[in-house]
Amino acid sequence: MSSKWVYLFGEVNEAEKAAGSWEGARALLGGKGANLGEMTRLEVSVPPGFTVTTEACNAYLGADNTFPDGLWEQELEALRAVESETGKSFGDSKNPLLVSCRSGAKFSMPGMMDTVLNIGLNDETAGGMIALTGDERFVYDAYRRLVQMFGVVVMDLPDGPFEDVIEVQREKSGAARDADLNAEDWKTITLEFKKIYKSHTGNDFPTDPLDQLRLATEAVFKSWNGKRAIDYRNAAGIEHSLGTGASIQTMVFGNMGNDSATGVATSRNISTGENEIEGDYLLNAQGEDVVAGIRDTKPIAELKADLPKEYAEFAGILRRLEKHYREVQDVEFTIERGKLWLLQTRDSKRTAQAAVRIAADLVDEKLIDKKEAVLRISPDQVDFFLHPQFDVIAKKAAINNGRRIAIGLNVSPGAAVGQVALDADLAEKWSKEEDRKVIMVRPETKPDDVHGMLAAEGILTSKGGRTSHAALVARQFGKPAVVGCSELIIDMENRTISVDGRVINEGDWISIDGTEGEVFVDKLDTVIPDFSDPYLLRILGWADEFRKLGVWANADYPQDAQRARDYGAEGIGLCRTEHMFFEAERLPYVQKMILSQTEEEERSALDKLLPFQRSDFEGIFRAMDGLPVIIRLIDPPLHEFLPSHDSLLVEVTELRIRGDDADKLAKAEKMLAAVEGMRETNPMLGLRGVRLGIHMPGVTKMQVRAILEAASIVAKDGVDVHPEIMIPLTSHVNELKVQQATLEAVAKEVMAEQDMEIDYKFGTMIEIPRAALTASEIAEYAEFFSFGTNDLTQTTFGISRDDAEASFLVEYIEQGILPENPFETIDPDGVGRLMQMATNEGRKTRPGMEVGICGEHGGDPKSIKLCHEYGLNYVSCSPFRVPVARLAAAHAALESEA
Amino acid sequence: MSSKWVYLFGEVNEAEKAAGSWEGARALLGGKGANLGEMTRLEVSVPPGFTVTTEACNAYLGADNTFPDGLWEQELEALRAVESETGKSFGDSKNPLLVSCRSGAKFSMPGMMDTVLNIGLNDETAGGMIALTGDERFVYDAYRRLVQMFGVVVMDLPDGPFEDVIEVQREKSGAARDADLNAEDWKTITLEFKKIYKSHTGNDFPTDPLDQLRLATEAVFKSWNGKRAIDYRNAAGIEHSLGTGASIQTMVFGNMGNDSATGVATSRNISTGENEIEGDYLLNAQGEDVVAGIRDTKPIAELKADLPKEYAEFAGILRRLEKHYREVQDVEFTIERGKLWLLQTRDSKRTAQAAVRIAADLVDEKLIDKKEAVLRISPDQVDFFLHPQFDVIAKKAAINNGRRIAIGLNVSPGAAVGQVALDADLAEKWSKEEDRKVIMVRPETKPDDVHGMLAAEGILTSKGGRTSHAALVARQFGKPAVVGCSELIIDMENRTISVDGRVINEGDWISIDGTEGEVFVDKLDTVIPDFSDPYLLRILGWADEFRKLGVWANADYPQDAQRARDYGAEGIGLCRTEHMFFEAERLPYVQKMILSQTEEEERSALDKLLPFQRSDFEGIFRAMDGLPVIIRLIDPPLHEFLPSHDSLLVEVTELRIRGDDADKLAKAEKMLAAVEGMRETNPMLGLRGVRLGIHMPGVTKMQVRAILEAASIVAKDGVDVHPEIMIPLTSHVNELKVQQATLEAVAKEVMAEQDMEIDYKFGTMIEIPRAALTASEIAEYAEFFSFGTNDLTQTTFGISRDDAEASFLVEYIEQGILPENPFETIDPDGVGRLMQMATNEGRKTRPGMEVGICGEHGGDPKSIKLCHEYGLNYVSCSPFRVPVARLAAAHAALESEA
Repeated sequence: MSSKWVYLFGEVNEAEKAAGSWEGARALLGGKGANLGEMTRLEVSVPPGFTVTTEACNAYLGADNTFPDGLWEQELEALRAVESETGKSFGDSKNPLLVSCRSGAKFSMPGMMDTVLNIGLNDETAGGMIALTGDERFVYDAYRRLVQMFGVVVMDLPDGPFEDVIEVQREKSGAARDADLNAEDWKTITLEFKKIYKSHTGNDFPTDPLDQLRLATEAVFKSWNGKRAIDYRNAAGIEHSLGTGASIQTMVFGNMGNDSATGVATSRNISTGENEIEGDYLLNAQGEDVVAGIRDTKPIAELKADLPKEYAEFAGILRRLEKHYREVQDVEFTIERGKLWLLQTRDSKRTAQAAVRIAADLVDEKLIDKKEAVLRISPDQVDFFLHPQFDVIAKKAAINNGRRIAIGLNVSPGAAVGQVALDADLAEKWSKEEDRKVIMVRPETKPDDVHGMLAAEGILTSKGGRTSHAALVARQFGKPAVVGCSELIIDMENRTISVDGRVINEGDWISIDGTEGEVFVDKLDTVIPDFSDPYLLRILGWADEFRKLGVWANADYPQDAQRARDYGAEGIGLCRTEHMFFEAERLPYVQKMILSQTEEEERSALDKLLPFQRSDFEGIFRAMDGLPVIIRLIDPPLHEFLPSHDSLLVEVTELRIRGDDADKLAKAEKMLAAVEGMRETNPMLGLRGVRLGIHMPGVTKMQVRAILEAASIVAKDGVDVHPEIMIPLTSHVNELKVQQATLEAVAKEVMAEQDMEIDYKFGTMIEIPRAALTASEIAEYAEFFSFGTNDLTQTTFGISRDDAEASFLVEYIEQGILPENPFETIDPDGVGRLMQMATNEGRKTRPGMEVGICGEHGGDPKSIKLCHEYGLNYVSCSPFRVPVARLAAAHAALESEA
Repeated sequence: MSSKWVYLFGEVNEAEKAAGSWEGARALLGGKGANLGEMTRLEVSVPPGFTVTTEACNAYLGADNTFPDGLWEQELEALRAVESETGKSFGDSKNPLLVSCRSGAKFSMPGMMDTVLNIGLNDETAGGMIALTGDERFVYDAYRRLVQMFGVVVMDLPDGPFEDVIEVQREKSGAARDADLNAEDWKTITLEFKKIYKSHTGNDFPTDPLDQLRLATEAVFKSWNGKRAIDYRNAAGIEHSLGTGASIQTMVFGNMGNDSATGVATSRNISTGENEIEGDYLLNAQGEDVVAGIRDTKPIAELKADLPKEYAEFAGILRRLEKHYREVQDVEFTIERGKLWLLQTRDSKRTAQAAVRIAADLVDEKLIDKKEAVLRISPDQVDFFLHPQFDVIAKKAAINNGRRIAIGLNVSPGAAVGQVALDADLAEKWSKEEDRKVIMVRPETKPDDVHGMLAAEGILTSKGGRTSHAALVARQFGKPAVVGCSELIIDMENRTISVDGRVINEGDWISIDGTEGEVFVDKLDTVIPDFSDPYLLRILGWADEFRKLGVWANADYPQDAQRARDYGAEGIGLCRTEHMFFEAERLPYVQKMILSQTEEEERSALDKLLPFQRSDFEGIFRAMDGLPVIIRLIDPPLHEFLPSHDSLLVEVTELRIRGDDADKLAKAEKMLAAVEGMRETNPMLGLRGVRLGIHMPGVTKMQVRAILEAASIVAKDGVDVHPEIMIPLTSHVNELKVQQATLEAVAKEVMAEQDMEIDYKFGTMIEIPRAALTASEIAEYAEFFSFGTNDLTQTTFGISRDDAEASFLVEYIEQGILPENPFETIDPDGVGRLMQMATNEGRKTRPGMEVGICGEHGGDPKSIKLCHEYGLNYVSCSPFRVPVARLAAAHAALESEA
């Protein structure tokens, strides 16, 4: 173990050398200490200071809370260096040096460990500070803070008595807020705090600054083994042996006159991404004033006029930091008597729009390459461009007006505006019967609440976490949601919500932002971001260069196909033909077909359906000129096209008892009998998909005819058409063999009639485990595979999605039995293993076979990564997910390169 | 190609040498020729003759139907050898040699190719035969047969005109049957036949016996390429290049005086297996007389008195044949003037009882070893001992009395007696409402008929084959069935069945034997064969020596467990606990538990159920003292324990309209709401199995407590108890992890309370594809696996058994899309592959882990073979299948040795 326990910020090179690497230096100094060192190394002016190492912490804790040999001496030596650098002296009543003492471990543990500010204040130095700043109120506020923090953090006193004193003083002075307390008030409070300190500890508050420093250092060390910190490390998987560093840094003050200032800024505009410094500052003020909103801040551009030299230095530093970190920086700064100090820099948060523009600009500025630009954009940020969001200006205004009343967990993205409904039945009633927009607000949700959640625009709860029922169900159904918003007090008796004493009645309008987790009162304006954003198109264009997976879309109608193509789809991976059957003018013929007693009747009904199907296909083929279109033959069980069994049963029972309409009864009984004849215990596993195609070959023939007639018609108009006919629910190769024979006969017939050769393919969904397990046989007939991961997940898990997602599946995810909802993200060990097997074994039979996915997972970034790993040719997803999938596919390719 | 085209029967050694092996000789001579040669080689007196080789046939067909060089000369030479051996001459009017000419290929193609008998007859030789036999009627009957067969077989004439002649003659003579026609009639018919021959062929019937022989040989060759024969070979997968042999054999006659006789016999009693010759014969008669039943035959024992020397020779030959073939023989013989001729020998058919005794006896006689004895018994034969069958005596009497009216396909074994019902609704009504036993008789069955089939004792159809709907459904539900009984004429208008003019009215009693495919009028007595048959027990004992698989049983009640143990079960592989819940006194508590609103209510209901469960388990543990008992925790969805949704919906609708009983309505509405709350779209994939155990941990705890309390109680009585607790429907290892924790806590608690250590195991069903795919993880928690192949088949195929077996699955098997019903026999490529993976990967994690099967497949011999191949430890099946499984497991082991 090194016997060097303390490094000045300027000694970061030595720390790095001692630790063998920058990673090692981070471990030795902690993240905060290392970063302060790094800024110092970049010659950015950082208030001088030093860091006590994590090794010192471990030595201290390992020796029953005793400083290791030499530590205190090194700390004193470092302090002397700081004094000489700042020209101030620790404990000097004329020009006192004040310092902060902060913890900082290798990995960030926000809020978990301790900080003490203003170390070095006592009655004498306080007087010196008043003389220097002319701001007695500020000095006593700082002083009382030191006493309070010292009591609570260092001496482990309860916070309550301190807060009580402040409250009593507010009442005495008639002050509504702390900001209204004056210098005298804070002075009184400081005195009272010292009394509390003495009564609780038995000792006077330490007036010797060195005692303060020593005790603060020890408190930081001890906080490493505090319960909160241990719990955090257990949860985050951080090793307990790392220890924390303690950084002791000179306090600087922006309220030392008009040559002083304080502010925050980002190196670019983080709403729009424009390349201009953005931020706020105040002359002759302290940092808190900027944040607290007590005084009106000035935009950073005005600092140029106020303090031109300092501004120029500041702008230069920002550029340098950006260049060094190759990323937009978010900084805090203070100017103390004309001297600029950077207190902190970190990578800046930004809106999705800004992220996209900044990434593109950084490529132009040669700070990052195109790969990195693509990797810096998250799929969610692309998704942002495709859904309504709150208008940025409106939202900013609402925040400034205090209309943002709470922040919870952002569990399901998107913006929602509606009237508060406090239970599911009411939410449903208002939505369905009164056509009102509703936000359902509950302490937490249960399976019984799902109907209300479905009817609502968005969901807000006061309890629950990221895997709570509300979160899971909201994500599943794409409803914006904010959960775990613990500031909300929901009063079911009075039908109100209150936050900080502000009361919202049931029926009042609120707005929630599921992307950010924010809750607003009143309606906020929403906008749909611009998908044609040139920066986004550049990023997606680069993504296209890197990705190996094709991105296709699921589309049943020509307009969907067109949209998909606009968004970059390279084919249609799934065109569901049955959706066409449900349309009002077609359903009667579908029902006639199903209920037909003779082949004649069936054929006549199918003849009516043929032109409808053909014209749908024509539209899709035209939209996808030159690209493949996979059309799936009819899939759902036939009873889905008939009236519901339960309503028929009720109707028949009623008519029987009333006994007044024999004709109607007979008709209803006949329909009931037909529906009962088709009723299945487990329709998901029943007569559907290819089973239906084999059972009713007339339907297959009609559909194949419609596809090839449509293809011939558009081909004659010069459209380059590539239909791929897909059989659903195959489980045995012989099903495919039988269907292929039927299909080829019709295809030949149509092509002869039309005198056209159509380049069509014949393939199958792989959505049943047995199909995956026998892929090598199935590939003898199928020219392509498309994974139907919705059904494949249902059968591989033996879980009915309809039943489970509103019941035990939610329990499972809440309890951590399932790490993720397998209907959102492919389960790699079960479903994924089958996909991998089927892909490999299918291609063994048919080398280079086209394999894709058309289940909903095709639009999920984690699943797209798996599809890339399995070597699929493409993913197919909803048109709105196409841009997201393009980016996610690029990420998958780039990450697997690394 | 050899230039030797003809082999005398006595030249079989040369043929074998020329062909290089006995297999080669069979290919060269055809099966019939080779067998006649083999009998000759055994010095059994076979009527002399020779075989024209298959090579000759191929040469003939290959040369545009021209005899190859030397063939005819060799045939003539062989004929001369036969003449010299028999002392008869071909064409000699005094002592004429008559021969038959029969086809015979390497593989048996029964009824597919041609035979011509009595070659050598013409007007002169007929006169000679009359002089020799003194039986003019017989000779003219033989003569007209030659003309008819020659016309139809050799010259390809239609059979109609010949049959018309016989009918005209019957009318003329007032003869009811052919048997009533006299010598003069047959003489007239012979003349008429020759006229037909001439008018159709333009030539006279050939009177030269050598012409007859030559043409007959050619006819046999040509028949190889007849449509029937080609179709048969295509269906049976026999190569078309093999060709057929032609065997020319001396005709012998048992009607040449009282030193002549003819008969059939088996070398042992094939009903009982006793070691005594059994058969029938007639003195001075021809073979047909024995079969036709015109004259009363004598039991073979009397031949000893009638013809003692010949009998002794006959008995000696039978012993010799048995020894040679190491199998009971079924022979035809003729004694012509004191000379015994064997016409045919083949392995004898026998009853199951006889098969078992014969196999055991042959071991004692050292003709076969124990392995072969075990292999000679089929699983069906063991099954025979466990189900009612027709009494052998009663059945023989019925056959002799002409009460066996038809024979169809034996598609589902067992005996059934009932009243004819001609439609499904009537079958159900009679059975359910009037408690009558019913045989449902239909031309064929359809899915609509299933309710009637279920209500019936047995099923009989006039159409359909082994994979018809009726056959599949009957087998599935274990109903005896005979299908494709084309003699039956079903008259739905008059509600009758008729066979050969005999009319059976609806409601009349009939009996069907699904094991043999027989249909009887009236009731036949049934018996349950004796499972304690000592021969069977010996065979099963030997089977136990050879098998590697354990045989366990599925049993829910103590009496079932006891029966299973009596039948040889070595453990209980599946004890379903929920069956116990359905019993009348328990169901109310189960419903209370399900509908409980508070934990208190739930616990109180569970407390009531605990003693019931405990006492069930006690009984099973006592019955299985020393053996493992696997108990599966509750599996079915809860709504199965509640009233049906539809009946509640009807009740509520009725009560609402009537409006006269508000209390009852409220109660019914409450129950309906509860049932609707639990209703699932696909209950098979819903809240059941381990999902229920996790959702309602109270049930798991109660069940585990009941198991361990029961185990402790019986252990205190000295019972050696080995409970294995099994979790159903696992799909993710975490489910098991959670359940194991719950279970271990309860187990520790109970064992502490009882102060006992119970040797229990914790394991899981593997019945979901994902469980099989992640077996290596699951084996970290599970100490044993048991394949639930019913559910595993449902999920692997994505087929709901309830829905499919009465609908498309039957279509699939009928159409050959599925080679077998996967719910009867494990699908090796899908389900079997998962089983193999899970076994291997599970044991990689937990070496030597116990793996078994408890789905219905555990009692299916083909599936047992697969389980043996996969390396399972045991199969578990219904107690009644245990003996079958013991044998099948031995077969699997012995076959895999080979």
